[in-house]
Amino acid sequence: MPDAHIVTVGTSPFGRTDLTGRDLFSVAITEAFAGLPDPAAVVDALYVGNQSEAYEHQIMYGSLLAEWAGLRHVPAERVEGCAAAGALALRHAVEDVRSGRHDAVLACGVEKMTAGGTTGATDALSAAFDRATEQRSGVTAPSQYALLAQRYLHETDATEADLAAIAVKNHANAAANPRAMFRSETTVETVLESAYIAPPLKLFDCAPVTDGAAVALVAAEHVVDALGVADTVRVAGAAAGANNLAVADRNLTVIEGAAAVTTEAYAQAGIAAADVDIAEVHDAFTVCEALLAEAAGFAPRGRGYESALAPAERSAGWTDVALSTSGGLKARGHPVGATGIAQAVEAFEQLTGTAHPDRQVAGAETALLVNEGGVADAVTAAHVLTVA
Amino acid sequence: MPDAHIVTVGTSPFGRTDLTGRDLFSVAITEAFAGLPDPAAVVDALYVGNQSEAYEHQIMYGSLLAEWAGLRHVPAERVEGCAAAGALALRHAVEDVRSGRHDAVLACGVEKMTAGGTTGATDALSAAFDRATEQRSGVTAPSQYALLAQRYLHETDATEADLAAIAVKNHANAAANPRAMFRSETTVETVLESAYIAPPLKLFDCAPVTDGAAVALVAAEHVVDALGVADTVRVAGAAAGANNLAVADRNLTVIEGAAAVTTEAYAQAGIAAADVDIAEVHDAFTVCEALLAEAAGFAPRGRGYESALAPAERSAGWTDVALSTSGGLKARGHPVGATGIAQAVEAFEQLTGTAHPDRQVAGAETALLVNEGGVADAVTAAHVLTVA
Repeated sequence: MPDAHIVTVGTSPFGRTDLTGRDLFSVAITEAFAGLPDPAAVVDALYVGNQSEAYEHQIMYGSLLAEWAGLRHVPAERVEGCAAAGALALRHAVEDVRSGRHDAVLACGVEKMTAGGTTGATDALSAAFDRATEQRSGVTAPSQYALLAQRYLHETDATEADLAAIAVKNHANAAANPRAMFRSETTVETVLESAYIAPPLKLFDCAPVTDGAAVALVAAEHVVDALGVADTVRVAGAAAGANNLAVADRNLTVIEGAAAVTTEAYAQAGIAAADVDIAEVHDAFTVCEALLAEAAGFAPRGRGYESALAPAERSAGWTDVALSTSGGLKARGHPVGATGIAQAVEAFEQLTGTAHPDRQVAGAETALLVNEGGVADAVTAAHVLTVA
Repeated sequence: MPDAHIVTVGTSPFGRTDLTGRDLFSVAITEAFAGLPDPAAVVDALYVGNQSEAYEHQIMYGSLLAEWAGLRHVPAERVEGCAAAGALALRHAVEDVRSGRHDAVLACGVEKMTAGGTTGATDALSAAFDRATEQRSGVTAPSQYALLAQRYLHETDATEADLAAIAVKNHANAAANPRAMFRSETTVETVLESAYIAPPLKLFDCAPVTDGAAVALVAAEHVVDALGVADTVRVAGAAAGANNLAVADRNLTVIEGAAAVTTEAYAQAGIAAADVDIAEVHDAFTVCEALLAEAAGFAPRGRGYESALAPAERSAGWTDVALSTSGGLKARGHPVGATGIAQAVEAFEQLTGTAHPDRQVAGAETALLVNEGGVADAVTAAHVLTVA
C-alpha cells in the first residue's frame, strides 16, 4: 500500500472576513502552492468539506473549487458530515493515494459562516440535529453541548473553572499562531465572568463563528520526490465512523465514536496513545477537549478536564500530550467544514518544526487529529500523522 | 483488484409522497434486504447522495441513514454533487470494494423534494448554479437547460417534435415500470401542446419534482457467495469528473465531461460504446438524452435527437442501444440525490432479466449509466454494468 504524505498546506485568514467562500479557498491554495507547479499540473482529484449551503446558497462546491484551482475533468466533490466534513475529505484523499487510484489529491475545507450572521449560523448548524426528535424542541449547538457539560460536571470532579482553564490555554496557544482568529490571551476570571450561553457553558467556552478555508495536498512518495519537497508529513492512520444522530441516543460523557476511530487510527499507525506528542481534538466547546482527551486514551476516565495542566501536574494515567497547540477551535477559529483540514495544517507545522517558536512543541514527531460532526460523535474522523 | 458487484437493490415509491426522507430510505432498504441478513450483519460502510438540506432542514444524512439501517461505528457520510450525488455515492462504494478497504458498502440516495413545494425545489436547485455569475440573474434549471436546447435546435436538424418524441418514448417505458412516478403513456401532440416553461422546453420536456430513495448494496465476490445471491451485476467501470460550474464557461452542445467519463468507464470495462445494450442517461430535460447519446458515443454528432426511433430508423453511425428503459428521469421520476442509484436499480433489473416483461430488453448484458449534476456536465459520473 503506498504511503500517503501531506506535501503542502495553506489557509485563508480565519475570522470575520469580506471574502466569499471561493475567495477564501483561493487564498489557501495560493499559499499551499507557492513555489510549486500550478495545481492543474499536480492534482488528480479534489474533495471539499463544506457544512451548509445556507451560508452562501451554493451547493456543487466540488466543481466550484476545481474550477478555481484550474482543474477540469478530474473527480471533484463535496463531502458533508457537519463539522467533520474536513476530515472526511482528508480521509478520502488519503485513501485514494493509498489505493493507488490517484497520486495527488487536494483535500479542502471551506465555510463562509458569517454570511448569515450569528442567527444564520445557529440555524444552519441546527440542521445537524435530528429533525424529527431534536430540532422541533428548538435546541442550538451550545444547548446540546451543555447537556454533555452538565453531565460531565455531575459525574466528575471537574468545575467550571477547570473548563475555563482549557479556554485560557487555547487562547495562549493562539496568541502564538499567526493563523488564529483570536490572538489574545485571556484569564480564568474573564472566562468565568463571560455570559452564560447555555449553562454551564459561557461565551468563552464556545468556539466562534468563523470564515475560513484550508487545503492540504496529499500525495504518494514519488510525487513528493518529483516536486522536490523536503519536509512532508506521513499520514499513518485514517479512520472514520458514524454514531446515532440524536444525542439522546448516546452516552453523553463516553464518546464511543471517538474511542473507536482513534483506536483504529492508532492500530493503522502501529502506535499507542502514549506515543502521541500533539493532538488537535475538536474543542468546539471546552468540555469537548476534556471528553476527547479521555476518548483518545490520553487521560483516565473523568480526568480529561486536566488538559490545560502541565504534564507533571496531571493525574496519574495521563500521557504528556500537548493539546490544541493551534489554539484549537476555541481560539484558532472554527470554520466548520474547514476545521478538519485546519487541524492537519497545525500538525504539518508542528511535525515539520515550522510552527511559531512560542508554540512549537520541541521534538514533536506524532500527532493525532480528531474531528467531529453533529453533537459529539454523530460522525468522527481521526488521523495519525508522523514525521516522514 | 477485487471485482465489485451489485448484490441487491431497492427503492421507495417515486412521486409525491407523505414520507420523510428517512422513511423513504426505510422502504428502499427493506426491499433490498428482503430475504437477506440484517444490514448491520453485512454492511461495512455507507454513502448517501443527497442534494439539499433545504427540503428538510437536515444535514448529516450519513449518520442519519446509518442509524436507520442499524449500523454504528462504520464510516457513513453524505456526498453532494447536486443531481450526480447518487452516482458519486455509488462510485465510492465501488472503489471501496475494489481497493479492498471494505467488503460490502451500501450506496444510497435520498431526496424529499416536495417538502418545500415547487418553489422550494426551484430555489434549492438554483443553489447548484454559480452564485457569483448565474444565480444573480434569476436563472432556474429549466431556463439554464433551455439555453442548451435552443442552441441544439439551432445547430442540428432537430425539432421540438423530435424532443417531444423522447418524452413519449420515456413515458411508454415508465408505463411498464412499477417503480415509475408517471405510469401513463403520452403523445407528441400532448407534449407539444403543453405549456412552455422556458422555450423551447415545455412542461412535458421536464423531469418532475420527485420524492424518492434508492439503495444498492455493492460487495466483493466472497460476500456474494456468503449471502448466496445468485444473480448479481458486475460494476465493470466507474468514473467521475467535474467541469466548470457556470454553463457560460462550457460548450452548450458538446458535453465534454460526459464524453470524458464514459470513455474512462468503457476503458475500465474493456468495451466500446457499441457494446452497450441499455443506457440510463440523465434526461432531466428531453434535450439531455439527445446530447448524452452523442457524448456517450451512441449517436453521431447532431443526431442524438433520434434516440426515440427504433435502431433501424436511426441515422448511420447510431448504435442499437435502448435508452432510458426505466422511463428515465422524465417519467420514472427525478428525486435528485437518488437518481444515480435509481439508474443502477434499472440496470440491475434489466441485466438480471427481472424487469417488467413489457420493458425488458431481451439479452441485455451491458448497461451504461450517466448521472450529471449542475447544468449538464458541471459534474458527471458514469458506470458500466455487466452481467456477472
